[in-house]
Order: sequence, then structure tokens, then C-alpha cells
Amino acid sequence: MTENGVNSHRGRVLTMDTMNPNVKKVEYAVRGPIVQRALQIEKELKAGVKKPFSEVIKANIGDCHAMGQRPITFLRQVLALCMYPELLSDNKFPEDAKNRARRILQSCGGGSIGAYSASQGIERVRQDVALYIERRDGGIPSDPDNIYLSTGASDAIMTMLKLLVSGEGCTRTGVMISIPQYPLYSAALADLGAVQISYYLNEESCWSLDVSELRRALNTARDHCCPRALCIINPGNPTGQVQSRQCIEDVIRFAAEENLFLMADEVYQDNVYAEGCEFHSFKKVLFEMGPKYSNTVELASFHSTSKCYMGECGFRGGYVEVINLDPDVKTQLTKLVSVRLCPPVPGQVLLDVVVNPPEPGEPSYATFIKERTATLDDLALKAKLTEETLNTVPGITCNPVQGAMYSFPRISLPERAIEEAKEQGQAPDMFYCMKLLEETGICLVPGSGFGQRDGTYHFRMTILPPTDKLKIVLAKVKEFHQDFTQQYS
Amino acid sequence: MTENGVNSHRGRVLTMDTMNPNVKKVEYAVRGPIVQRALQIEKELKAGVKKPFSEVIKANIGDCHAMGQRPITFLRQVLALCMYPELLSDNKFPEDAKNRARRILQSCGGGSIGAYSASQGIERVRQDVALYIERRDGGIPSDPDNIYLSTGASDAIMTMLKLLVSGEGCTRTGVMISIPQYPLYSAALADLGAVQISYYLNEESCWSLDVSELRRALNTARDHCCPRALCIINPGNPTGQVQSRQCIEDVIRFAAEENLFLMADEVYQDNVYAEGCEFHSFKKVLFEMGPKYSNTVELASFHSTSKCYMGECGFRGGYVEVINLDPDVKTQLTKLVSVRLCPPVPGQVLLDVVVNPPEPGEPSYATFIKERTATLDDLALKAKLTEETLNTVPGITCNPVQGAMYSFPRISLPERAIEEAKEQGQAPDMFYCMKLLEETGICLVPGSGFGQRDGTYHFRMTILPPTDKLKIVLAKVKEFHQDFTQQYS
Ligand SMILES: Cc1ncc(COP(=O)(O)O)c(C=O)c1O
Ligand SMILES: Cc1ncc(COP(=O)(O)O)c(C=O)c1O
Repeated sequence: MTENGVNSHRGRVLTMDTMNPNVKKVEYAVRGPIVQRALQIEKELKAGVKKPFSEVIKANIGDCHAMGQRPITFLRQVLALCMYPELLSDNKFPEDAKNRARRILQSCGGGSIGAYSASQGIERVRQDVALYIERRDGGIPSDPDNIYLSTGASDAIMTMLKLLVSGEGCTRTGVMISIPQYPLYSAALADLGAVQISYYLNEESCWSLDVSELRRALNTARDHCCPRALCIINPGNPTGQVQSRQCIEDVIRFAAEENLFLMADEVYQDNVYAEGCEFHSFKKVLFEMGPKYSNTVELASFHSTSKCYMGECGFRGGYVEVINLDPDVKTQLTKLVSVRLCPPVPGQVLLDVVVNPPEPGEPSYATFIKERTATLDDLALKAKLTEETLNTVPGITCNPVQGAMYSFPRISLPERAIEEAKEQGQAPDMFYCMKLLEETGICLVPGSGFGQRDGTYHFRMTILPPTDKLKIVLAKVKEFHQDFTQQYS
Repeated sequence: MTENGVNSHRGRVLTMDTMNPNVKKVEYAVRGPIVQRALQIEKELKAGVKKPFSEVIKANIGDCHAMGQRPITFLRQVLALCMYPELLSDNKFPEDAKNRARRILQSCGGGSIGAYSASQGIERVRQDVALYIERRDGGIPSDPDNIYLSTGASDAIMTMLKLLVSGEGCTRTGVMISIPQYPLYSAALADLGAVQISYYLNEESCWSLDVSELRRALNTARDHCCPRALCIINPGNPTGQVQSRQCIEDVIRFAAEENLFLMADEVYQDNVYAEGCEFHSFKKVLFEMGPKYSNTVELASFHSTSKCYMGECGFRGGYVEVINLDPDVKTQLTKLVSVRLCPPVPGQVLLDVVVNPPEPGEPSYATFIKERTATLDDLALKAKLTEETLNTVPGITCNPVQGAMYSFPRISLPERAIEEAKEQGQAPDMFYCMKLLEETGICLVPGSGFGQRDGTYHFRMTILPPTDKLKIVLAKVKEFHQDFTQQYS
């Protein structure tokens, strides 16, 4: 292109050589090459290209509605009323939905959700979030001033990490994240130029978290960075575990001893399926451990409208609650979020309804409970179905899917397949997943996208497809795994 | 707090000393101390504290609906239909709104706007945006693959700047921004650790942009950074000018000669009021300058649903079109935006309707045009009113508000006021605006928040208050300025 240039030296300004080097290091497998290929295949199918399957089934991402989950009526009614307040006089809409819509509109500039909100989020919504947290945590107080609404949990997580990162060389900030992890974390750390400190979850005991492993990881890291934060995802993505109360206590004690800022990613807090498992918020456990901890340990807890029974990913609603944050730093946080003006107001509205759902006695209560229960029961069934079916496949072992929306089974791959993958410069489980996609149309994410112990291989599969389809997916995976094993043995 | 600590060394992890030093440098005046104080005063008024005024009037931010601008019916109808598709069978909604809603829902995963979209944005919406740009630019082609939907223009601007920034010391990226500027730019550059290269707009000739000034700024910067991008806001915020076609050509030629990546912030493209002024998109001018330029100059052009006749700030809709971006860098951009999953889908829906409004012959056409015209005509009247009234005040001179939503008048301040401000450690125009707020309840932003030539003072006032209220605001400002001048003379 330079031949036409006004300046014989003019090449492109922005190239792979000149661009931000941190961005180059960012990886995000959930939407990586396998998903790109899946989209291509969909286009090929549409264009009439013959394949051994008729549709691509995307079990790669926790995108509930895309997999057929129905929106909760009440949430959408309130949203529609806020969008188009003329509907407030329409008797097709129940009074409780109208009351909530009116209440939210009154909190918006000019009574319109088209106004910017406060950068921290609409005050009334933050108050409602605080009340929700108090109910959830058995009355432990929550201060609306500690709540920051966000553009999905992703945004809040990246903002908190950004605040934490500083230093160069040996004083570079280190952040502990689990392996396997949700790759937002590794991506954000790469982007920020921070050091990722990997601690491994224990696959042998249902992806539990051992403090001894945290300590090992921390000690190894101390010589090349300054460890300052510890991230936990509970219930786990991609691993589907639900941590015990004891584990959470141990983690808090560890963070207190080692001077670490705790980041608790609790976006799956309603997604707990297994008998005997229960969600314990870090905030609640922290406060139950007494003032020695609750007065000192810095905690950020994240939630989202994308998961749980709502699955409203497209709205990009979410919040972070910060505990024991330095007041001056809080001022800095408020300033930082103000640069982007505000989180999307429809997402704030949605969040408000989520934390303030129909009460017994209100007209929408029965339907709301029915829909919520149906959604969560359905997920619980599919969690069980997934685990049980995968465990019938020789060469696949799958921990119980106690919570969240994913199974992360371990797959044994024949030596020859591993070699062939390496020859092609691919991670062996990427090689496996690509072949699965080409042969069956099923789109999964290879374990290497989340991290795993060397020499082990996994894939992540959501439990989200409708039961009929999930059964087909599981049967196809089973068949494929057997064929693949045979082919490369 | 450490006395209770589990570890005698335990202080806070995250403090002003340890936090990200770049974040500390971020400033964002539009939501700065004066706005904090305005919110406080509102609470005081509510609590019954007596003031010389009964309400706070916020003319500090381009928040249209908050200032009483009405949403456009058609936009909100399509949004309500997408939120709650049951309404598709309601005969209160016109067919053209229903058609658009159906078309968008078909492009959403599972037919729900609760699904994540592609990270770059819904393909159909990007196609519609490309068609809009082609119509706007007289047929110059636009490729949907060059369109990235975003969370407001803010998000896209920050993402593009992030891609551009690299290097340390003398190779640190320098980015040219106008002074006065919209402080998102200085904030983003501080956050990214890039060097701000300030070029001054020419207040004497209606905030025009002279290439000689660009060259001066660039030459001064070359010894301490590596200048790589040039940002232009047109129509201008905070300065309200509309650049001539000639000026845009000169800027493009300059960027070509000096190897600069062009960032054109065109969020006010419909907000042009002055006789003889017209919006010229950088893209169009670039292509009309012939292949020597259109094949080489890298351009990113930003647009938003927050401004123009829509004023739908809360939805956080927007897009960037990239021209001549290196294909490998484009892949990196796609990867980078995928980490945040996707822009809010309601904002994407809104953008789709904005770029694909009712056509002649469709049932909503007449009302749509009526509402749009009324909104823009009203803004034009208020632009004129603001300029004219301010120019009647001795000591205030105001350039024509040719476009956008702001006046940025120059105010002369008595020496004694300047001294008193300095004693209090305040910028003199901050001192002025704070006093104005305390005495009249009017909230403006001091010129120092946007940058201005040393020794000059300004404030930014939006033209958004309803005409009655705007008249009151202008009268109060007039009175205040006279009193202030007298008091300190
Ligand atoms: C553990 C975890 N955290 C955060 C997110 C981000 O979700 P969102 O940004 O949609 O709220 C996800 C999404 O899948 C997740 O699984
Ligand atoms: C010049 C300019 N650019 C960008 C923005 C950001 O707008 P948004 O993020 O709401 O699209 C604004 C907002 O006022 C602006 O004035």
C-alpha cells in the first residue's frame, strides 16, 4: 500500500510490531479458534456444504438463552415497562411489575432509562442490592456505598484488577488464580502486565482447594513478583465444584496471614445442584469469623445477571461489593468508573428486579417461583445427566457437577494422538476438540484454554443444551471418544 | 485496624501508596468535585436545608433525557417488543416496529436479547450500520467486518487507544488531543500511561483547528515520545464548533504526512445547527481525497446512541468503524473485545433502529420525523439562545454553538478572584463555578477540566435544559457574573 503513500516512509502506524505488547499476550479460549471455526461451519452448512451433521451445537459458552433457556416473565415485563412507559396503563401487565417499573423510573434522570445513571450505579438499585445481600447473608449488614454496579461481572473484575496492579520487575503485582480458571482472569492479567500466580485445584477430590497448594504457589511466586490478590471462583467455572464452608474459612485465614486482597467471583451463587452442597458467600463467612477478620480482610465479591436462573447475559448487568476497601482507594475507584460514564441502565434495571423479585402475596409471585424453580431444577437434572453419562465412557472421568453450568471431564488421549497434535503445533485437547467439531458439529472448549496440570487433558462442556439435545451431545461425544481412541491406538 | 490483625504487619493491601499509579493520575471533570458537591446540595435541599434556590440545575453533562428531552417513540417501541416478545401480538404496536423487532430477535441466540452476542456485535446490526454509513457518505462502501459495536463510544475509544499504546521512555506512545478536549481522552491516556500531546483549538476563529498548531505540538512532542495518533472531536465537545471540509482535508493530509493514526470522534454527527455548517465525516473526506489517502491513512470513526436526536445515554450503544486497519491487528482487536464478552444487547438493538429508522410509507414514518425534527430544532434554538444571551454579559464572550450540545464561553475573572482561588488551591474557574453552584444551584464544569490556554478561563454549559429553564439559567449566570465581577473588583 505504501506505493501510493504521500510519504515514501509511510507504512501502517499500527502493526503487530508497534501495537500494545500486552494485548498480544491476551488469550480468551471461550471465544477462541474453535468458536471461530464453529461459526464458519455454520455458514458452510447454510451454504449447502455437506457435513456428517446438520447443525452446530454450541456447548462452549455459558450462554443460557442461546441454548433455549426461557427468560423469566417478570423480569422482562418490568424491563418492557421501563422501555416504553406507555405500557404502564396497559392492564395486561401485573401491578407488581408496574410498581417496580415506576419505582425504578423515578430513580432515573428525567424519569427515563435513557439518562446516564450515577457512575457507581443508580442509588436505589444499589440500596436494593445491599438489602438482597443482607437477606442472603442472614442479616450481616451491607452498605450501598460499597456496591458498584457494572457492565457484567467481567467489567467489575477487570476494574478491581486494574486498581490492584502496579510496580515493575520484582515489585510487579502478582495475582493468584486457580488452574483451571475462567480465562477472563488470565486475559486481564496479561492486559495489565501483572504476574499470574497459578494454584491448582485438586481434581482428585472434586476440584477442591487446598491451602497447602495456595502456600506452595505463593512461595514460588515471591521471588519474581509481589503477590497481592487471591481470586476464587465459587461455584467454579470451568470445574463446577462448590467449595465447602471450611475451605472458604481456610482461604480467608490464608489471605489474612499472607496479606492478600480477596476477589470472590460468585456469579453462580444460585447454581448449586448437588446433595449436601450449599453456597457460602465469602462475605458471610468472613463476618462469621469475627472482627479479627471482618475488620481487616479486603474483599471484593462479584455477581452478575448473566447466570443463576436469569441467564440474561446480553444485558451486561452485575455488581461488585467491596469490603474493607481503603476510603481513599474507594474515591479512586469511583473516579475510575466515572470515565466510562455508567453501566448500561437496562442491566441495572434487570439487576434491581433480580434482587427484588415478587414477594408472597404479589400477583406475579406464583409464576415467578414456578419459572425460577423449573429453570434451576432443569439445570440440576442436566448436571447429573452429564456427569453420569460421561462417566460411562471408558477414558473419560468426570467429577460431579455440583454447581455452575459446566462439566470439565478429564480425557485420556492415545500417545499417537498427542504426537500428531504436537506435529501440528496444537494442544492435544485442542486437536481433539477440533476433530469433534468437524465430525459431529459439537463445539466444546479444550482444557488447555483454562489451564490444567501438565500431561492431563480435559474439555469444558456446558450443561445448557435442552435435555433432548444434551442427550444427543453426550451420545455423540461418547461415540466420538471411542472412535478417536481406537483410531489413534 | 491493624491491632486486630492476625499478623502484626497486616495493614491494608490496597492503599494510595500501593495502588495502580496510572489510575491516580486519571481525572474526569465532567463528573468531578463540582458534581459531587451538586449531589450533596440536592440531598441538603431534600433534607430541608435552606438555600437561595430551590433546585439544582445540572448543565454539566450531555445527559439529554435527564434534562427533559423525550425519547423517540419508535426506538422505545422496538426495544419494548424485543424485551417482551409477547407484545408482538399486541395491536397497539405498529407493524414497522414489530418487523424490526422480529428481525433483530432472529439475529439473537435463541431469539432472545438475553443471549450474549458476538463480541464484535450482532452481525445483522453491523450490516445495518454499514448501510447507514454508506448512505451518510454518499455511497462510499462500508464493510460490516470493519464495524465493532461497543458499550457507548467511550468503550470503543478506550479500546482503540489501548491497542495503540506501547513503549517506554522516549518510545512511549504520544497521542494528540485538542485543548479544550473531552476529558475521556486525557483520562484514558493517563490510565494507559501514554503521553498526551496537546494541540490548541483557535478560540479567536470559532475553535477552528490549524495545521500549523498541529505541527507545532507534534514537533515539541517528538523529543520525549513517539507520536502515533491524532484525535479529533467533530462537532466539538466542549467547544461546539463544526469543522469545515477544508479543515478535515488538511488534517488528513497532515496525518498522512506525519504517519499518524486518525481517531475521529463523531458522536455529534446529527447535532449541527448553524447556518452554513455541515457535518463532513472523516471517512467521506478521506475517500474523496483519492486512493493516495484512502488506501493508506488509518482511521477509526466513533459514533454513539447517546447524542444526536436520540440522547439515549443509558443504553450504552455505540460503534467504531476502522479503515485501513492491519488485518492482523484487527484479529487482535477482535480477541481483545471478546474478553468482555459483548456490548450490551439492548444498546445494540437501539443502534440498529437508529441506523435503520422508519422509511417513507411505513406507518411510523411521520411521527418519527416529527419527533426527530422537533428535538433537533429545539436544540438549534437553544444553541442560538445560549450564545446570544451569554454575549450580552460584559466579561463573557461566547463563540457560536455551531453543533454538539455545549457552549464554552470565555469568562474574564478579576485579579482578586484569581488570587483568592489560588490561595485556596483551586483553579480560578473552579472557584467561580463552585461559587455559582453554591449561590444559584447551577452546576457547570470549569474550563480547567477540559484544558484551555494559560491565563484564560471558561466554563462549559450544556444547551440541554428545557427552554424556560435555560432562560432562567442564563439569566442567573448573567446576574452571578456581574455580582462576582463587582465583588472581586
Ligand atoms: C466465573 C465467571 N465470572 C465472570 C463471568 C462474566 O460474566 P458477565 O460478564 O456476563 O457477568 C463469567 C461468565 O461466564 C464467569 O463464568
Ligand atoms: C465527544 C464525546 N465522545 C464520546 C462520548 C462518550 O459517549 P458515550 O460513551 O455515552 O457514547 C461523549 C459523551 O459525552 C462525548 O461528548
